[in-house]
Amino acid sequence: MAERFFQHTFPNGLTLLAERMAGMQSAAMTLMLPAGSATDPVDRLGSATVLSDLVLRGAGSRDSKQLTDYLDRLGLQRSSSVGVHHSRFGCAGLAERVVEGLGAYSDVVRRPHLPQAGFEAARDLALQSLAGLEDEPRQKLLIKLREWHLPSPYGRSSMGNKEDLEKLTLELAKADHASRYHADGAILALAGNIDFEQLKDEVHKHFGSWNGRTNDDIKVMPPPGNFHHEDQQSEQTHIGIAYPSIPETHEDYYTIRMAIEVLSGGMSGRLFTEVREKRGLCYSVWAGYSSLKTQGSILGYAGTSNDRAQATLDCFMTELHRLSDGVTEAELERAKTGLKASTIMSSESTSSRAGAIAHDYFMRGRIRTLDEIKNAIDAVTVDRVNAYLKKNTPGPFTIVTVGPKALKLPA
Amino acid sequence: MAERFFQHTFPNGLTLLAERMAGMQSAAMTLMLPAGSATDPVDRLGSATVLSDLVLRGAGSRDSKQLTDYLDRLGLQRSSSVGVHHSRFGCAGLAERVVEGLGAYSDVVRRPHLPQAGFEAARDLALQSLAGLEDEPRQKLLIKLREWHLPSPYGRSSMGNKEDLEKLTLELAKADHASRYHADGAILALAGNIDFEQLKDEVHKHFGSWNGRTNDDIKVMPPPGNFHHEDQQSEQTHIGIAYPSIPETHEDYYTIRMAIEVLSGGMSGRLFTEVREKRGLCYSVWAGYSSLKTQGSILGYAGTSNDRAQATLDCFMTELHRLSDGVTEAELERAKTGLKASTIMSSESTSSRAGAIAHDYFMRGRIRTLDEIKNAIDAVTVDRVNAYLKKNTPGPFTIVTVGPKALKLPA
Repeated sequence: MAERFFQHTFPNGLTLLAERMAGMQSAAMTLMLPAGSATDPVDRLGSATVLSDLVLRGAGSRDSKQLTDYLDRLGLQRSSSVGVHHSRFGCAGLAERVVEGLGAYSDVVRRPHLPQAGFEAARDLALQSLAGLEDEPRQKLLIKLREWHLPSPYGRSSMGNKEDLEKLTLELAKADHASRYHADGAILALAGNIDFEQLKDEVHKHFGSWNGRTNDDIKVMPPPGNFHHEDQQSEQTHIGIAYPSIPETHEDYYTIRMAIEVLSGGMSGRLFTEVREKRGLCYSVWAGYSSLKTQGSILGYAGTSNDRAQATLDCFMTELHRLSDGVTEAELERAKTGLKASTIMSSESTSSRAGAIAHDYFMRGRIRTLDEIKNAIDAVTVDRVNAYLKKNTPGPFTIVTVGPKALKLPA
Repeated sequence: MAERFFQHTFPNGLTLLAERMAGMQSAAMTLMLPAGSATDPVDRLGSATVLSDLVLRGAGSRDSKQLTDYLDRLGLQRSSSVGVHHSRFGCAGLAERVVEGLGAYSDVVRRPHLPQAGFEAARDLALQSLAGLEDEPRQKLLIKLREWHLPSPYGRSSMGNKEDLEKLTLELAKADHASRYHADGAILALAGNIDFEQLKDEVHKHFGSWNGRTNDDIKVMPPPGNFHHEDQQSEQTHIGIAYPSIPETHEDYYTIRMAIEVLSGGMSGRLFTEVREKRGLCYSVWAGYSSLKTQGSILGYAGTSNDRAQATLDCFMTELHRLSDGVTEAELERAKTGLKASTIMSSESTSSRAGAIAHDYFMRGRIRTLDEIKNAIDAVTVDRVNAYLKKNTPGPFTIVTVGPKALKLPA
């Protein structure tokens, strides 16, 4: 591994990753704990989301206000989120301040106060954002699409559901913290102007004695079905289409990635050209590749006026089926150029890189260099893409719609 | 001016700005034409938006498909938007590709084909995004807030209105292009790994003979009133609050910026703490400073469940009035650290910098260095902030709500 990248796994199972970006003043940190929505207890969906808010309401020697003031005084821009596999805490700021803040983040995950008042506020906010989904039919559609496409518990929304959130108590949240916030399987990634040896010492000091093991015994169940319509008196119809694909670790990963770039990358992508530019059917349409640890998916979306919804769905399906006929040399070249350019651009952002190396490690157990990614993209040939597309026809499809009227589904 | 920044105004009135960021592989370009929604003809609101789409549908020697393919083949990530003062075209990619693409952008603004079929598709998409607003009450609220707060035509939405868009014709769009897409007052800004002398030659080649003068005779009218409720059967109530402030060029600009940071910067900001963290009243609340060329505003937003809307509005107003009592030393220090950190972080992004130098030039007629910004922030004292806040009490307020029920307004 080149001296740009560093990796160390502590005896307790925490992995520290770093990318040194010498020209930067800033650094970014991503801490991923294996406490995602897929491991929410079965009757407490949304529990990880409430917990990820609650742990920030006072930890270690600081109460809620002191902790927030302290992190703001360091000038750290912060975020937290819950995905399928992980609860994630992130921050970015001047490099030395990000390292200085690590002690407070170890308090957050290891020694949170979990106060009663904070619990109620955190749960109320979770219930409110769930209710707010009714005003955002596009976001609601994307949540429903994953629910109907992916096997449970991987298709769950991290927002949980009303019934479970209402049953949640502080005691259950405390038990959840004890069982899911552990060093084993956790990933801490930093990118920016940092010294790795010094960083490793800091991390050892704050996280070295953190212990425990997460129980990740997950029972997988098929999704409820392939087609779903959610009735809503909205002005637009929101259409989601999904079908299974290979995971990111598969040798044909960039083969399918490039094919989907031809379908929906840049502005010359087929979907954008056919659905939006030529026919003016809708102003928002895309398809993308998305991967869980063991399963990839192609997810597509279109939002359109109700009277054009059927034509939009039909046109979208035509483009998906047309993939089997293959792509042209010119289309592939444009797709490669676009993906390489966006890879290089995100390599200039400490936040993008901290997220990317953590993701790489989770998916592949190691960090990929930019050259490795660039070479993998360059190695994709038209013949390989077309042979893959001919053999792997799209489907079976999951189709979910949100709007005032169900659509006629493809046979 | 240090060798990091470059500035040149051509005889035709086009100003070229550049920031050399030696460590980067990428560059970003922003081209701003003085064709914003404020200069939309009075009975053709939305005209600049339709035009900014239409000009990309074929220009110079390339038809629509060829132009899109060409820019994708350069690997350029592109955007376009219409604001109050400008129509804006932007792209980012590898530095040499961004420079290579300048010829195509000169075609776009100088020699667009403006085809009939493209006009109809562009207008249809504009009508659709307008209709889609009904499904996005938060975005609708923010549009209505500007409409009711700012004097016309500065409060106009660039999306236009249905009636005007339906009356628009290709002939009117052609006339609009002839009268508003001109060199005079246009700003072209690039940031990244570029050579200025070479860039200046390229720009001269492509834009040097571009001419014409925009007629910017704007008739200003007061907004319709101070309070407005938009009835919508939404799950949440969306609240917007605005009041006038000084423009960015005022000597007390950073004084009020820091005060608003204390109110709503970072997570220790008063609004976040009082409304969200302590009371769990809502999950989204913020206030920010916003500036037109000659007028600043404070704009605030809260989205909350209908039964908490009144309490949220009341709490928000209490925090606004409490500003007059002043801020503490600790609050000001946190606010300064936060603003300086985010300034430094955005200085590491070519896209942020291209936008920032173009904005600086439009507002101030020159580019500010990062040190100048940092020194201006450091120079703000508690005494100055508190004297300012005591003298300039917030108001008069514009309050706009979107939701199922009007709220009781403050006296």
